[in-house]
Amino acid sequence: MSAEFGVDLDFGNDGLVPAVAQDADTGDVLMLAYANREALAKSRETGRAHYYSRSREELWEKGATSGHTQEIDEIRVDCDGDAILYLVEQAGGACHTGYESCFHRTLDGDTVGEQVFDPDAVYE
Amino acid sequence: MSAEFGVDLDFGNDGLVPAVAQDADTGDVLMLAYANREALAKSRETGRAHYYSRSREELWEKGATSGHTQEIDEIRVDCDGDAILYLVEQAGGACHTGYESCFHRTLDGDTVGEQVFDPDAVYE
Repeated sequence: MSAEFGVDLDFGNDGLVPAVAQDADTGDVLMLAYANREALAKSRETGRAHYYSRSREELWEKGATSGHTQEIDEIRVDCDGDAILYLVEQAGGACHTGYESCFHRTLDGDTVGEQVFDPDAVYE
Repeated sequence: MSAEFGVDLDFGNDGLVPAVAQDADTGDVLMLAYANREALAKSRETGRAHYYSRSREELWEKGATSGHTQEIDEIRVDCDGDAILYLVEQAGGACHTGYESCFHRTLDGDTVGEQVFDPDAVYE
């Protein structure tokens, strides 16, 4: 239960919900990451997408390092309250590989989508 | 590692990856569920979206009961190989509540999206 939000959310045993980011203009699915309660509250409060990094074990503002921020248009919650959808305006590209979307490969290994920045110029 | 697919996939400790279904025509994000290796292989083999139900602990073909199947246009994999995206043609609605998308509520509790079928007429 989460009285701080307008709907009940289920953060599960690990305190996280999967968070899908979708480009509000193009409709492209950009990435899937995870949010804890704090990340979700920060996203709503600041209007910029926040996640929880499972590998670094810390709150993570998307684009804080790269500049590729995600301005939030709307946050949606699924029927079970155990997944969220960020509708965002993506600056640059969402993927650390330089592609607009992290989903730039098919299951067969073909590349789809376009590279919109040079990752070597952004990440040292 | 997964030699059966064209890209390396990381099914994690629980053998699952989150699977996002997106309407191939409208771009709407329809739902988020989970797939194990078998579900993903079945999806590719049959061209209909399969998932793994964590609550029922079994392979699950979307729409097998409701008729609201998802014909797969393409399966995409994210940069880390730990999330997948099904681009689908959705019959009826994806959500058991009768809405086209499971993401039919905002974080504040407002309803967005439309109800496309009567759940009482589909699920007994």
